[in-house]
Amino acid sequence: MNETAASIGPATVTDVAAHVRALGDAARRAARALARADTRSKNRALQEAAAAIDAGHEALIAANARDRAEHPDLDAPLADRLTLDRRRIDAMAAGLREVAALADPIGEITDLRYRPSGIQVGTMRVPLGVIAIIYESRPNVTADAAALCLKSGNAVILRGGSEALHSNRAITACMLAGLAAAGLPQSAVQLVGTTDRAAVGALLGLEEYVDMVVPRGGKELIERVSREARMPVLKHLDGVCHVYVDERADVDKAVRIALNAKTQRYGTCNTMETLLVAEAMAAPVLSRLAPLLRQAGVEMRGCEAVRALVPDAVAATQEDWYAEYLAPILAIRVVKGLDEAIDHITTYGSRHTDAIVTEDLGRARRFLAEVDSSSVMVNASTRFADGYEYGLGAEIGISTDKFHARGPVGLEGLTSRKYVVIGDGHVRE
Amino acid sequence: MNETAASIGPATVTDVAAHVRALGDAARRAARALARADTRSKNRALQEAAAAIDAGHEALIAANARDRAEHPDLDAPLADRLTLDRRRIDAMAAGLREVAALADPIGEITDLRYRPSGIQVGTMRVPLGVIAIIYESRPNVTADAAALCLKSGNAVILRGGSEALHSNRAITACMLAGLAAAGLPQSAVQLVGTTDRAAVGALLGLEEYVDMVVPRGGKELIERVSREARMPVLKHLDGVCHVYVDERADVDKAVRIALNAKTQRYGTCNTMETLLVAEAMAAPVLSRLAPLLRQAGVEMRGCEAVRALVPDAVAATQEDWYAEYLAPILAIRVVKGLDEAIDHITTYGSRHTDAIVTEDLGRARRFLAEVDSSSVMVNASTRFADGYEYGLGAEIGISTDKFHARGPVGLEGLTSRKYVVIGDGHVRE
Repeated sequence: MNETAASIGPATVTDVAAHVRALGDAARRAARALARADTRSKNRALQEAAAAIDAGHEALIAANARDRAEHPDLDAPLADRLTLDRRRIDAMAAGLREVAALADPIGEITDLRYRPSGIQVGTMRVPLGVIAIIYESRPNVTADAAALCLKSGNAVILRGGSEALHSNRAITACMLAGLAAAGLPQSAVQLVGTTDRAAVGALLGLEEYVDMVVPRGGKELIERVSREARMPVLKHLDGVCHVYVDERADVDKAVRIALNAKTQRYGTCNTMETLLVAEAMAAPVLSRLAPLLRQAGVEMRGCEAVRALVPDAVAATQEDWYAEYLAPILAIRVVKGLDEAIDHITTYGSRHTDAIVTEDLGRARRFLAEVDSSSVMVNASTRFADGYEYGLGAEIGISTDKFHARGPVGLEGLTSRKYVVIGDGHVRE
Repeated sequence: MNETAASIGPATVTDVAAHVRALGDAARRAARALARADTRSKNRALQEAAAAIDAGHEALIAANARDRAEHPDLDAPLADRLTLDRRRIDAMAAGLREVAALADPIGEITDLRYRPSGIQVGTMRVPLGVIAIIYESRPNVTADAAALCLKSGNAVILRGGSEALHSNRAITACMLAGLAAAGLPQSAVQLVGTTDRAAVGALLGLEEYVDMVVPRGGKELIERVSREARMPVLKHLDGVCHVYVDERADVDKAVRIALNAKTQRYGTCNTMETLLVAEAMAAPVLSRLAPLLRQAGVEMRGCEAVRALVPDAVAATQEDWYAEYLAPILAIRVVKGLDEAIDHITTYGSRHTDAIVTEDLGRARRFLAEVDSSSVMVNASTRFADGYEYGLGAEIGISTDKFHARGPVGLEGLTSRKYVVIGDGHVRE
């Protein structure tokens, strides 16, 4: 078996633990080479991988057809996510070229300052080492995640869904062609070569080889990874996002933001799930917002005060305050004011993204300081919580943890910093 | 039992798990208040705590005498570390005033930039929440750690060594006097009220209440905490630090740096444990360095090439390359050049602090980029790896992990960042 075959995964794997361990060992060695790869080589690999995808359209579509033929019983949304067509293949290649165009974060030295002792002290951005990505049906994640890891100088081990195995192999082959053209090690990008679920468990126990794992998929997958991983996990579980309309809100802005935060897309983690309205604003805001939500087909579930103003609102229960609907449903609650809104968000929220609508600077300052979420917003739609909207250039995921990266995570979230000290023979007195 | 008594710990604890859980719950509530405490209040608490220590000299010395009387069998270094005298008490108070004088990291918003959509996006520095500190005999850690946590807006749970219980209680009482004077919650600083070792296990399982744990003490303590903690641990296990003398080194600088890195202090984690010398420099460097090390009483353990030049050097074994002596012993190895030096450091090092001595810019660049340690240095002594030397103002510990904080860790290592978005009614198109 040659090196390329090893990275795509052998046809049959008999010993899952040994296979995964071998991937880890090869990745660790590749990581050393990647950490010192220059920007030109990494970009060349990405450009050549994009060219391989362009040239490989037919093969990619054939591999994808094979996946779909082997899994005829997938439900419609899953089958759609699995499908690769011309447009999606072009988007993958374009994505690789966009990552190539991003600034290389590695090696950046910042804050290099002279200390009284005469030494200069600063920090240098460096790769984490080896990243494992565990994901479900969308095969484009193979190219996206590999590109971000490669650009940030990390080796990557990919474990895609079993239903996308042929597609993922074909895409990985394009990534390997890029690595080869740039003279970078093939084991910088490796696909787990078995659909055996035990491979995930084996990968999550590989703490000596894998520095971070990124699960991308449904809640069940993320919970399993969080539970079993022996290494740090970059993740968010829920997106129970709130918009709080303060009594000093501008009604136009409040209605516009609430409508956008709920209806621009229903299935995303940064969609508003609960609207909180200060007592004084309940009538003016809900009288304008309710008809618009109704018209959009959004079911409203409210507290008593809401139902007095919106007769067709269903009575909300405790469960509604915790719910991430990912659907055209909105929980609405009238609160006394800012303190009660912050208490509600602290109690029921998921620390993902929360917004206040207010013209009052003092309240905006308090909301920003006191709401403990990965993104806090003033007078803007929660839908903006996104790596592209924030200017990160690309996004590997969103983290609601406080450690390492928090909020939308781009290339920098795949890096660490180390101290750099430069002297000229300096010793400590 | 009043609130102050609860923070110092009750006289007897019957249910250890319930006691520790109650501390966690109280800390979580205090953390919310501390997160929004203004700089003036936090500084006032620190200044008043310092004043309480000044005024409490007699009580502190009496409490410390009681600890020493109850533990007459401690060995000399432990007994010394346990002892509080006038000088050490003054140093504690001065330390609190130094932390008060540091800039408040909390609330700092950086990189607030307009995006094409019109929103402004930046990040705000925020506290982690609740920090647990687990430490051994030195009672001054009680004041130092509590001060850093308080200044960074975190609640802290302190678990000191059983031999220092009375001293720790007396110091905690001073911290509580400071909190009271500033109107901050007493449960912002809490001491575990039992010397039962089960309390450590209970604390390490409290992941819903404790955001990070910092072990300070011997390797056994740190290993236990790393193994059992369900939350992130800020730590370093070993300091196997290297100085590599490159063939383009200046001999004067090499000798000065190596001597300082080994002999300035023997028991610290940033002391050099292995000296690597390029073949071409072995004779000129060792002929001058060996007599100086000999004179300082340092035992030399070398490879064959070293022993040919330094006849009294003991033969080094594989174990010497891994050893953190923390003693007047130095392992010395002759290597072919930079690649072999980096390989040696990668294989045997602990990723703490490593230095190259060279006048060659290209080799300095490679060493800085390729050595994967928390501090990498050019022409400077490894002894500089220290929060004060780096200008952090204070140090809670040194981390050799790549996640969250790395290298010497000051106030910023006790914080996280969240995204802040400011719009004026902006919605996503």
